[in-house]
Amino acid sequence: MRGKFITFEGCDGSGKSTQLRLLSNYLTEQKIPHIFTREPGGGKISEAIREILLSGKNMEMTDECEALLYAASRVQHLSDRVEPALAEGKLVICDRYVDSSLAYQAYARGLGDAFVRQINDFALKNYLPDVTIFIDLSPEEAFRRKHGADQNDRLELAGADFHDRVYAGYKEVAKAEPNRVVCVDGKQTPNAIFEEVLRILKDRNCL
Amino acid sequence: MRGKFITFEGCDGSGKSTQLRLLSNYLTEQKIPHIFTREPGGGKISEAIREILLSGKNMEMTDECEALLYAASRVQHLSDRVEPALAEGKLVICDRYVDSSLAYQAYARGLGDAFVRQINDFALKNYLPDVTIFIDLSPEEAFRRKHGADQNDRLELAGADFHDRVYAGYKEVAKAEPNRVVCVDGKQTPNAIFEEVLRILKDRNCL
Repeated sequence: MRGKFITFEGCDGSGKSTQLRLLSNYLTEQKIPHIFTREPGGGKISEAIREILLSGKNMEMTDECEALLYAASRVQHLSDRVEPALAEGKLVICDRYVDSSLAYQAYARGLGDAFVRQINDFALKNYLPDVTIFIDLSPEEAFRRKHGADQNDRLELAGADFHDRVYAGYKEVAKAEPNRVVCVDGKQTPNAIFEEVLRILKDRNCL
Repeated sequence: MRGKFITFEGCDGSGKSTQLRLLSNYLTEQKIPHIFTREPGGGKISEAIREILLSGKNMEMTDECEALLYAASRVQHLSDRVEPALAEGKLVICDRYVDSSLAYQAYARGLGDAFVRQINDFALKNYLPDVTIFIDLSPEEAFRRKHGADQNDRLELAGADFHDRVYAGYKEVAKAEPNRVVCVDGKQTPNAIFEEVLRILKDRNCL
């Protein structure tokens, strides 16, 4: 039987990594076959693209170039990591996917929904996750928790307005696809969030 | 006054590089302000993308990833090199542009005209060269001249059928846009080809 495909989304510092770690421990304990992967990256070619995307040296990158690089990395990652694991019946947990492009490129960069959806729909052949968990935490709260931005990360350096637009973009994405995208209140304790994540995944027959 | 934008297209080994060298000498002698650039590449970010695209180690690259990377490199290169030089009134000579994607990705890889045009139209905002010179030489003839494929180049290793489809793709592109794309018979001597190139550029008010 084909595995389920679960993605996690949220602003930088929203607590995604903590939830992914808790979920990893849980799945290992329960002996549930799974892989963890991330976007951009997750394979040789995708990681090379990730390096270009995230390097603090590439501040002159155009918004269009950025959106195309994310889509390129995504389709390669899908082919290298996601599809083979799903075909083996494994649960695939991915840190960021197409909704990140909608929030960051379409909304925050202002490229518009139509352009970003179009390049991604083509690249991914409309391939969407079974469930997407959006950790809903505002950038103000997130940066307060992580004590400021990583000075080597191009995206974290993009400024407060940018991150506010990302957050607003995620809210739009969640509103547009309520069946796929489930919002979880990121102001709760990590354990409370994780309990909710487990409940959602069980409800959706992913566990 | 805004400069003119000239692109050269052709199969691997068609003699493009020789023509570009002859044109470079000519423009320098005539003291015509110009830049030479190439695709993929032509700037820090675009060259990094070029490295991923051409590396013989990346044979597992999907066709969709390849097309998106070319478009990403193209839009960045346009912003970094082409647009500023045209704004300064310089002649811009570019080795490969969007027609390469149509020939290689749309036709030879079989991704289809619609997909490749769409991602490129968006990325380039329909920005097309003033004139495109297609050096018309079949891949059989081209590879015979260069004594086989470069073993470190992913595209040159793609096989004879692939290169035949590229050639057929270029013919379609030239047929579809006869006003922009001018075919030059690549079986002539380099000097005879160059004379024709100069005549075309003069006819189009590029020189």
